[in-house]
Amino acid sequence: MSTLVDDPGAAPRGSLPTAAELARQLRIDVVRATAAAGAGHPTSGASAAELVAVLGLRHFRYDVDDPGHPGNDRFVLSKGHASTLQYAWLKAMGAIDDAELLTHARPGSRLEGHPRPLLPWVEVATGSLGQGVAAAVGIALSLRRLEGSPARVFVLCGDGELAEGSVWEAFEHAAHYGLDNLVVLVDVNRLGQSGPTMVASASGDTATYARRAEAFGWRAVEVDGHDVDAVDRALALAGRTDGRPLAIVAATEKGHGLGDVAGREGLHGRPLADPDAALALLGAHPEVSARPAAPPPVAARPRRRAPLRLPEYAVGDVVATRLAYGEALVALGAARDDVVVLDAETGNSTMSELFAVAHPDRYLEMFIAEQQMLAAATGLASRGWTPFAATFAAFTTRAFEFARMAAIGLAHGPAGVRLCGSHAGLSVGESGPSGMGLEDMACFRAVAGSAVLQPSDANQAAALVAELADRPGFSYLRTARGGVPVIYPPGESFPVGGSRLLRAGEGAGEGAGEGAGEGDGEGDALTIVGSGVTLHAALEAADRLAARGIGARVLDCYSVKPLDEAAVLAAARATGVVLTVEDHYPQGGLGSAVAEALAVAGVPARLTVLAVPGIPSAGPVAKLTAAAGLDADGVVAAALRALDAAVAGPEAGR
Amino acid sequence: MSTLVDDPGAAPRGSLPTAAELARQLRIDVVRATAAAGAGHPTSGASAAELVAVLGLRHFRYDVDDPGHPGNDRFVLSKGHASTLQYAWLKAMGAIDDAELLTHARPGSRLEGHPRPLLPWVEVATGSLGQGVAAAVGIALSLRRLEGSPARVFVLCGDGELAEGSVWEAFEHAAHYGLDNLVVLVDVNRLGQSGPTMVASASGDTATYARRAEAFGWRAVEVDGHDVDAVDRALALAGRTDGRPLAIVAATEKGHGLGDVAGREGLHGRPLADPDAALALLGAHPEVSARPAAPPPVAARPRRRAPLRLPEYAVGDVVATRLAYGEALVALGAARDDVVVLDAETGNSTMSELFAVAHPDRYLEMFIAEQQMLAAATGLASRGWTPFAATFAAFTTRAFEFARMAAIGLAHGPAGVRLCGSHAGLSVGESGPSGMGLEDMACFRAVAGSAVLQPSDANQAAALVAELADRPGFSYLRTARGGVPVIYPPGESFPVGGSRLLRAGEGAGEGAGEGAGEGDGEGDALTIVGSGVTLHAALEAADRLAARGIGARVLDCYSVKPLDEAAVLAAARATGVVLTVEDHYPQGGLGSAVAEALAVAGVPARLTVLAVPGIPSAGPVAKLTAAAGLDADGVVAAALRALDAAVAGPEAGR
Repeated sequence: MSTLVDDPGAAPRGSLPTAAELARQLRIDVVRATAAAGAGHPTSGASAAELVAVLGLRHFRYDVDDPGHPGNDRFVLSKGHASTLQYAWLKAMGAIDDAELLTHARPGSRLEGHPRPLLPWVEVATGSLGQGVAAAVGIALSLRRLEGSPARVFVLCGDGELAEGSVWEAFEHAAHYGLDNLVVLVDVNRLGQSGPTMVASASGDTATYARRAEAFGWRAVEVDGHDVDAVDRALALAGRTDGRPLAIVAATEKGHGLGDVAGREGLHGRPLADPDAALALLGAHPEVSARPAAPPPVAARPRRRAPLRLPEYAVGDVVATRLAYGEALVALGAARDDVVVLDAETGNSTMSELFAVAHPDRYLEMFIAEQQMLAAATGLASRGWTPFAATFAAFTTRAFEFARMAAIGLAHGPAGVRLCGSHAGLSVGESGPSGMGLEDMACFRAVAGSAVLQPSDANQAAALVAELADRPGFSYLRTARGGVPVIYPPGESFPVGGSRLLRAGEGAGEGAGEGAGEGDGEGDALTIVGSGVTLHAALEAADRLAARGIGARVLDCYSVKPLDEAAVLAAARATGVVLTVEDHYPQGGLGSAVAEALAVAGVPARLTVLAVPGIPSAGPVAKLTAAAGLDADGVVAAALRALDAAVAGPEAGR
Repeated sequence: MSTLVDDPGAAPRGSLPTAAELARQLRIDVVRATAAAGAGHPTSGASAAELVAVLGLRHFRYDVDDPGHPGNDRFVLSKGHASTLQYAWLKAMGAIDDAELLTHARPGSRLEGHPRPLLPWVEVATGSLGQGVAAAVGIALSLRRLEGSPARVFVLCGDGELAEGSVWEAFEHAAHYGLDNLVVLVDVNRLGQSGPTMVASASGDTATYARRAEAFGWRAVEVDGHDVDAVDRALALAGRTDGRPLAIVAATEKGHGLGDVAGREGLHGRPLADPDAALALLGAHPEVSARPAAPPPVAARPRRRAPLRLPEYAVGDVVATRLAYGEALVALGAARDDVVVLDAETGNSTMSELFAVAHPDRYLEMFIAEQQMLAAATGLASRGWTPFAATFAAFTTRAFEFARMAAIGLAHGPAGVRLCGSHAGLSVGESGPSGMGLEDMACFRAVAGSAVLQPSDANQAAALVAELADRPGFSYLRTARGGVPVIYPPGESFPVGGSRLLRAGEGAGEGAGEGAGEGDGEGDALTIVGSGVTLHAALEAADRLAARGIGARVLDCYSVKPLDEAAVLAAARATGVVLTVEDHYPQGGLGSAVAEALAVAGVPARLTVLAVPGIPSAGPVAKLTAAAGLDADGVVAAALRALDAAVAGPEAGR
């Protein structure tokens, strides 16, 4: 079933002395680069040296001087710990010089322990295992379905990382989308960090992996990964347009060619104890040049931009922010042809489905596979697209570690990935706590360079979708299930990092707008900070407090990260008492962001964090919201308690 | 390959009228329970009614009055949205009555939209798809390897959720461990929430899933899921001890038997528009009783407890907290036979390997599959074990959503799950940012009811391991790669929620201990809060500041959640200036926890959060730490800046 059909166009056995020489050279440079750093994974690089050598010399089509060439093949090192093998290859292809090779893992070097797009020849960041194939699915989707490019994507992955379920999500999606431009080379060296893999400890090895790949709809071939001719014949199958991705399952030896470390356990991630002995064994550096063949000519895509006409909602209408998300995506997709939308089989809830109908060529259904969804978005971003991915807020965190890696890979470029979590917080009601996203803001606030936005009405939601389209790095947008009144007129600006003061002083008007809430607020007793659905509870509470003669400022912190610290601090200084209200657990969300700002500034204000105090029950949303104290009644009660405490407390001076 | 071998012991076709009647009854009760709530997933329950009916009537061995019976079979509803089907079955088996059935999804009811162990007949919480099989692997491992019970685990999962990679992690692990006591019924109704599954949109359906299961080492049979005799013959294969888990891949129809909703798209998660019509079609309630057969007698395991003798480290020795983790687990395992250790193929780094050597029968290698690791721990906890699971801190968040679900399932019982992240923060150095866990505390602080602990020396680490052994819910322990000086004598107590004041006033002694740091601290100018490796930078900085005549308190907040708020507030009130130091991003970790405490209490102190400011480079740990300002030099500089600001700033009054 997975036997290799001889390719008459491939070189006969034993005819690739240069590939064997290049493999030897790659091993030499791997040993040198790891020895220079006193760190790295030489044995993991050595097992795949022939795979990379044959790929580089005979199959990879790439313009080294123009990494952005649209006809370039792409390479993803999913087993990122073998980075020095990729760096040695980059040296052989003339991308970097020997001096830079030896900067491996030094501070400031582009050659880190695991590859990142700091190097223009690296597509995505790897180093967290099981993510490379998934990101490559995004790249292959781009090349095949969106770019119309004949370029292929080659992934080198380890056998140990095939235990990560994300790899099988990727295998299923690649086959589902007919990505025969995707080739995964599996380096089956049988040894993980601490012992043999699951498959190695049973019988079968390459046959087992080949069977699994085939069961997921791939073409699979098994080869001796140190036989350059066999590898060559297998790679000759790349690009056959039979609709099936190709897995080349290569039996290898960890540390192959490096002397007595070969095939031994307990040496993962350790530079060689005696690199000179290995280098002596490997012989003189052959100085093979492996400049790849030129890529086929592919016309660069012209980017089309038309004026953006966002949907407009009338003030007072009741609209869900998730609907505005979907409608804004439709508008954005009409104005820009770089916008791509993904969803984890929840498009009729997140409202991604509106985009799927309007722009079906740029909608990618990712089914119930959140990790694959985010990895595909990252791969698409690496190809210049502007992806928006969505699922229920509760399930966004399934992909947390992929967001982490996206941020690491996107840190130095203009590209961005956007994740939208809908049905946030208690709003799933009867479904119960498993469907309630109450940790998402805490998680995604911790992603380096992230934005965390939570719109409070439909016009704001639409504006934030447009804002995020040009934001680099990782961004998270939190939308709500239920309808809320539109409070902002269409067409207003809501920059990332901003906020809106909606009530200030008794003289502040009810209407919103650029100039709303500009009363002097001298008489305000407290500030209520809301975001999303809780802003509406805050507004109602402020009205009720006003009826009792208590002035409450209301601040809409739609940008939870970055927080509009200046606005928060100004309100806190003016009122001395601050109440944050959020449909989220108390840790890490809006309340934490405000607490950080207040404490760091040393503002002597007293903060009350109103949040979901513990795991909720199931039930109607209104009842759950009331039980958590997050409706207007709860906010009023908390405000009165906070004001009492401020009067009584010795430390809440103004 | 996956055809069904007829079982001569099974009933002949058409001979199970009661099962068909029970299936009809289950549909009736599903319609009634969802209609009563105006919420739920009747069509998802209807597709699996025959599967559950045959299982319940003919194969499930269970003492309804004694859910804890060690011989009981176990049932996990991985497609948790079909909860009313399980509730209808529980009614049929006499566990709940009809009145309770109709409380489905009401506030305070045990019958939530997705099942939870609020009901004693529910093993683990489900509702986040793709987790049930993984948790069942933990239960099956317990029964087979740890309990020596002949009981089986039956899982009902959907076909849509097979897109989640975590399911394939579970399939691989189940086969690797030879769990032929595990049976997964796949309800292939072909329709997800928003459309057909990936497989349904290709050809093959049940054959495709069967092939995949077989490629992962399972026995697979395909059946018509509405043919009670076929289902019966398939289930008769359960418990054959051939070392292979069993997948019963059942072709079904979503909404089967409910009238015109059957097989239709767009009806997922919606109660029937006309339940009365469906009930009229279904006919009179047959009032079938489905009390299961009695479980086989299994002797209850006696629990063995011996005095705990934790490892002891001499003050001044340099020891890594991860080593203490491993050595403490060995000691805990010797004292208690309920301790089970899991690792994601990093045991030689996390030091779980010490337990694997000392107590190999209670060590479970989970390979590079963090989600499966945490799910298995949750399953083991449901069986009364005390699991500790570990991997690198960077990769703990791969399993975040499983920690979320663990917390939801464990919220009401004494059981707990513990996750340890080693090599936290910058300490992986040359590996670069992909290996740096800098978001873990933020994520796990947001898990409901969690503890987040970060020991600062080896004796404290060992004590905290022991503390966590009896803690319910989800707990996270963060250990470090490098050695740090032992500062606490052996044998001291470090309760969850505590802290240690290590320097206070110029008269405070250098030595640590119960009474250390009890100087009056009147002259202290600031408080430095550390945890883990940064505590040592804080101590050195305090010494240097003291040499300049500046008194600095040093507080060891080893319990980041729950934070020792009283101690933090007391120090902040006394000194007015607070500096937190953490090897973590600035959001959501130690600094946030302290900020929350200060702001909520309204303490007029000025906080400086020293943390890793952005994505680090790769390089030697010391250089990275210095670059982030987290070494003693950085802490001293930050302290001086904070003191200057406190003098200058208008709001940092003391």
